[in-house]
Amino acid sequence: MAGNTFGKIYQLTSFGESHGKAVGGVIDGCPPGTPVDETYIQVELDRRRPGQSKITTQRQEGDQVEILSGVLDGVATGTPIGFIIRNKDHRSNDYDNMKKVFRPSHADFTYDQKYGIRDHRGGGRSSARETIARVVAGAIAKKALESHGVSIKAYTSRVGNIEVQKSYKELDLSRIEENIIRCPDMDVAREMIELVDGIRKAGDTIGGVITCVAQGVPVGLGEPAFDKLHAQLGKAMLSINAVKGFEYGSGFEGTRLQGSEHNDKFVSEGGKIITEKNHSGGIQGGISNGQDIYLNVAFKPVATILQKQVTVNSEGNETELKVKGRHDPCVLPRAVPIVESMMAITLLDMLLTNKIYG
Amino acid sequence: MAGNTFGKIYQLTSFGESHGKAVGGVIDGCPPGTPVDETYIQVELDRRRPGQSKITTQRQEGDQVEILSGVLDGVATGTPIGFIIRNKDHRSNDYDNMKKVFRPSHADFTYDQKYGIRDHRGGGRSSARETIARVVAGAIAKKALESHGVSIKAYTSRVGNIEVQKSYKELDLSRIEENIIRCPDMDVAREMIELVDGIRKAGDTIGGVITCVAQGVPVGLGEPAFDKLHAQLGKAMLSINAVKGFEYGSGFEGTRLQGSEHNDKFVSEGGKIITEKNHSGGIQGGISNGQDIYLNVAFKPVATILQKQVTVNSEGNETELKVKGRHDPCVLPRAVPIVESMMAITLLDMLLTNKIYG
Amino acid sequence: MAGNTFGKIYQLTSFGESHGKAVGGVIDGCPPGTPVDETYIQVELDRRRPGQSKITTQRQEGDQVEILSGVLDGVATGTPIGFIIRNKDHRSNDYDNMKKVFRPSHADFTYDQKYGIRDHRGGGRSSARETIARVVAGAIAKKALESHGVSIKAYTSRVGNIEVQKSYKELDLSRIEENIIRCPDMDVAREMIELVDGIRKAGDTIGGVITCVAQGVPVGLGEPAFDKLHAQLGKAMLSINAVKGFEYGSGFEGTRLQGSEHNDKFVSEGGKIITEKNHSGGIQGGISNGQDIYLNVAFKPVATILQKQVTVNSEGNETELKVKGRHDPCVLPRAVPIVESMMAITLLDMLLTNKIYG
Amino acid sequence: MAGNTFGKIYQLTSFGESHGKAVGGVIDGCPPGTPVDETYIQVELDRRRPGQSKITTQRQEGDQVEILSGVLDGVATGTPIGFIIRNKDHRSNDYDNMKKVFRPSHADFTYDQKYGIRDHRGGGRSSARETIARVVAGAIAKKALESHGVSIKAYTSRVGNIEVQKSYKELDLSRIEENIIRCPDMDVAREMIELVDGIRKAGDTIGGVITCVAQGVPVGLGEPAFDKLHAQLGKAMLSINAVKGFEYGSGFEGTRLQGSEHNDKFVSEGGKIITEKNHSGGIQGGISNGQDIYLNVAFKPVATILQKQVTVNSEGNETELKVKGRHDPCVLPRAVPIVESMMAITLLDMLLTNKIYG
Repeated sequence: MAGNTFGKIYQLTSFGESHGKAVGGVIDGCPPGTPVDETYIQVELDRRRPGQSKITTQRQEGDQVEILSGVLDGVATGTPIGFIIRNKDHRSNDYDNMKKVFRPSHADFTYDQKYGIRDHRGGGRSSARETIARVVAGAIAKKALESHGVSIKAYTSRVGNIEVQKSYKELDLSRIEENIIRCPDMDVAREMIELVDGIRKAGDTIGGVITCVAQGVPVGLGEPAFDKLHAQLGKAMLSINAVKGFEYGSGFEGTRLQGSEHNDKFVSEGGKIITEKNHSGGIQGGISNGQDIYLNVAFKPVATILQKQVTVNSEGNETELKVKGRHDPCVLPRAVPIVESMMAITLLDMLLTNKIYG
Repeated sequence: MAGNTFGKIYQLTSFGESHGKAVGGVIDGCPPGTPVDETYIQVELDRRRPGQSKITTQRQEGDQVEILSGVLDGVATGTPIGFIIRNKDHRSNDYDNMKKVFRPSHADFTYDQKYGIRDHRGGGRSSARETIARVVAGAIAKKALESHGVSIKAYTSRVGNIEVQKSYKELDLSRIEENIIRCPDMDVAREMIELVDGIRKAGDTIGGVITCVAQGVPVGLGEPAFDKLHAQLGKAMLSINAVKGFEYGSGFEGTRLQGSEHNDKFVSEGGKIITEKNHSGGIQGGISNGQDIYLNVAFKPVATILQKQVTVNSEGNETELKVKGRHDPCVLPRAVPIVESMMAITLLDMLLTNKIYG
Repeated sequence: MAGNTFGKIYQLTSFGESHGKAVGGVIDGCPPGTPVDETYIQVELDRRRPGQSKITTQRQEGDQVEILSGVLDGVATGTPIGFIIRNKDHRSNDYDNMKKVFRPSHADFTYDQKYGIRDHRGGGRSSARETIARVVAGAIAKKALESHGVSIKAYTSRVGNIEVQKSYKELDLSRIEENIIRCPDMDVAREMIELVDGIRKAGDTIGGVITCVAQGVPVGLGEPAFDKLHAQLGKAMLSINAVKGFEYGSGFEGTRLQGSEHNDKFVSEGGKIITEKNHSGGIQGGISNGQDIYLNVAFKPVATILQKQVTVNSEGNETELKVKGRHDPCVLPRAVPIVESMMAITLLDMLLTNKIYG
Repeated sequence: MAGNTFGKIYQLTSFGESHGKAVGGVIDGCPPGTPVDETYIQVELDRRRPGQSKITTQRQEGDQVEILSGVLDGVATGTPIGFIIRNKDHRSNDYDNMKKVFRPSHADFTYDQKYGIRDHRGGGRSSARETIARVVAGAIAKKALESHGVSIKAYTSRVGNIEVQKSYKELDLSRIEENIIRCPDMDVAREMIELVDGIRKAGDTIGGVITCVAQGVPVGLGEPAFDKLHAQLGKAMLSINAVKGFEYGSGFEGTRLQGSEHNDKFVSEGGKIITEKNHSGGIQGGISNGQDIYLNVAFKPVATILQKQVTVNSEGNETELKVKGRHDPCVLPRAVPIVESMMAITLLDMLLTNKIYG
């Protein structure tokens, strides 16, 4: 109700503030027998970890997960999986001057108004450290999905105006981790990194788009009318910090087409019914049709810039703000595993939901 | 769970198929004392009604709502509001040839696979007739929101490549109903109508974008982390038939900017803290900040075209399909009240949820 | 949220007031392929119907169900099943003198205080006419459970101090419908009927207990920690009008025993593991163990008596109340199908929930 | 969905096994500003703690709570409160012989069948150590309710056949903590303790009843039809380990009365409308009426006895079981704070829910 739980069957409840003792969560509804591999979870957390490259924040956090329950001999028992990750390298003093100042385009003002009380240190609950819990739940979900033949890959497809021109089908998605911006087109990646590095030096930030693809998704996932698969995926992605837009399949551009151009012709191939073009993005009528699910997620430029800004304080008086602290010039590289995680959590949740029809 | 309920407190559960006896719904959690004005509900239903103009389907449905419970002397009593709308002008025979054929880009194949049984007549449950229930719940929500000073307006902002160039602030939103495409820019509207009419004559369809604006929204709506206001709005919109994308505030385009350009400076105006640019689209950290909420919803071209198409049947054999029936060449004009309804339902739901902090 | 939905997967949302246009509901999550037999539903409704015998209220309602959606050729399609039952024989004038008077032990005062507005006619939403929707959903659930080998029987086991002395195992549960009090012990039934008839003539009412037994329930239903099978069953039964208590298995009496007497010894019988005594009532650790589930539900005497009573009106002034209208001297015979329905709805819901582990 | 979350607004999600690393939980929806006093929480945990007296299990656990998030300067911030309690004194080896043996009247068999995998050490998830999380959430809820004038007291009212003869109104509820069985009638308490001590020495166990009273509850809590206040309370209590029955107000005994005897006459007293007898137990039509809420909860004798028992193993072969480990001869004294906690959690949840009507 108060918004810290996601999913209907595979449910993640997350907790924790940026500079509190720990962040963590509870996963309820994980199917018994699912492998829970702490080494793999750590690999995923390391993809999201601060300080991983020169173009991310330099906050140093090991982000070591400790699993407290629900797992026996490396597999889920079906009981809730509680886990925590202790916060270590927080420099709360860096935030002293923000206690009563509302940073532009940040959640300071709205949290203050909504709750009447606010943990201002490091952004408190509104910090993207909350997404750690998503990556833990996502890593477990990915492994569970793997056994159903589902694989998930996300990558940075645009930074500012620098964009991958190829479709995901023309890219080698196994190469995403080869560069620090997480873009499988190596030439474009180089340009993106250069852009972000320049932005970083200027104390500024930049936005962009992440593309995510799920392959091998079984037919039948999604619950119309209101819980259509893409509606759940849209909510999942829009709940990630800094996201401003979502589209799947042919998306916004597809709306320029006529039905006769846009329609996905069904064909029979080796006993399976597939579509030729997949403008539908793997989802028809809110239900997966077995084709690739692909979608785009738009991330705004990070609100915290290192330049001087004019804003107001909680008394409504104008004040000048010069942010200290260590911040990301561009969230995209670290957001890639988060997007994958939300895709995995949503697909596993819908796959389990679909079992009620079995 | 099975997807036919929307909202957490102001909850709509909808039911009904295109060619069944009736469509309808139950609204639970409507605050007692809310005016329930059947005349106004009918006005809203008439905006959604088929057969309202030459550029919509010619199916003739009065779409008369009958409220069965939860209302006394014109106001909600706090108990559930049950309502039905009987289906009248269905010509189920038009669909006989589709019983075992999967229409391209339609929900036929996925429903068939998911449920194993399918009411093929008029698209059954996957038909947009389901949205009637949303308009009823939306009309009541709009009235409830009005008493909180909230007003909601949606309009067609792009059809194919014909686009309103002005921002919503430069338009007179009171003129939306003056033309049959529901676009407040009269010159653009004329072009849009001409385009749709040509498309219709060719037996084809076209997509586009609807923009929706909510003004007067109180500060504090939205429940982070997972139920951020824009995540709920995104889910609401993506659950409408034919929607492929969603963005709010600066949206996809805003991701091209740098933080120093994009950030919303806070200023104090007449004792109120506001932002100057509202790139945030009225939502920061997932919580409304009192500024206008504005968003775009992308609708694909209607899948049902009147041209001959090649597809497969349920045995997987290739077959030719020539659709009969009466269909919309463009869903946008009829979708405008649906988008407004989902905005209203979501905002009222979040407003009621926010009361737990009061 | 506002309390008119029951169940997690097989979900009933009910609506309707005693003297409104109709009562009805929506069943979401009914497995596709479930037979939906209107004749059978009507049989069940007739068991609950007013005016069925001399010891029930004489209000005459046919209680004819009309199913509006979700069913094709006699089976559920997996889409929501909407249904209504029109109210016919309401004499709202009988309630004019109660508009501003709070009937003792009734919901008049609390509804008035909670909602600020109240449909006083026939008790409005607090009337047991709401349970009609439960019987419809229960009838469908019973049929779905039958295909899993589950059968459900309830009967009146005590009226006032007249009590069936035998355990359910010693009774012939196929004979419940042979008398108007619905008690399978014919001698006890005769005494009960005599008692109720006397009470009725005195314008008074009487309480009692209904026992319900489910046989053939598969092992594994129930979701600890909070949604233990008996916790869900308890909530289901306690939500029925006039219920004051619930116990299962050895219940309150079993708490007098020592562990060594009370414990259910496991034995192996024909390859199946069963318990010898079933003090556990078919549920251990909140999960069904394959043995019979049996439980008792306590119903208070109906609050509406035909004798003069002193009470207060909405201004807080003392007033005398003489109720008109037609009322039950004892709810038990009509509550038998309601108890069975709540058992069926809960078991089917838990059976579907358990599929996520399959 | 999988059963580890309780409440609609004030939501507790619990996790943890008896012999795992930790038990804990997340409280979502705690109103910002609620005092969160770790010292008081510890006082409550100490009432539930093992090893507190000679008539409880001798397992030694400090049960120190560590709060990880959601609290700043001693008050809740409105964000989720994560907390853990590490398990320390577990002797898992004591359970080696139970790995493949099903203890009578325990959850071993059903967990094994449901999940296919089972943490047998100390009962795993089915252990009452899970209730620690309830006591933490209950302590916070009690403090929140105090500010609304609500006070909650529970006590042992029957052990085996030794029963408090007085109504709660005739007892001094401030004296509950004065003896180790937690019964405010000192003479009866002495008898109860003697009984339990004898039972303990015999290696046996005994059941009984806990009575709980809430005073000062505002009018209006509870959401008919399905979430009636007593239905939620019933579910809350029945979800506690070892509970077999629930009744409120006049309960099972009241069903023996006639309506004319049972009905609660309304009277006006000092401008407030109250009832004279309160047979309704403070709840009418599922909604609190401002009178005391009182209820009884039946606890079966603990299943783990120290006597030799015959049972079967997971292969279905008969085997003899001699339990080691440290166990409670009677759960009642330690269950008193758990019953109070579930009352507090439920009332706070319903109080917050009721705000949507404000």
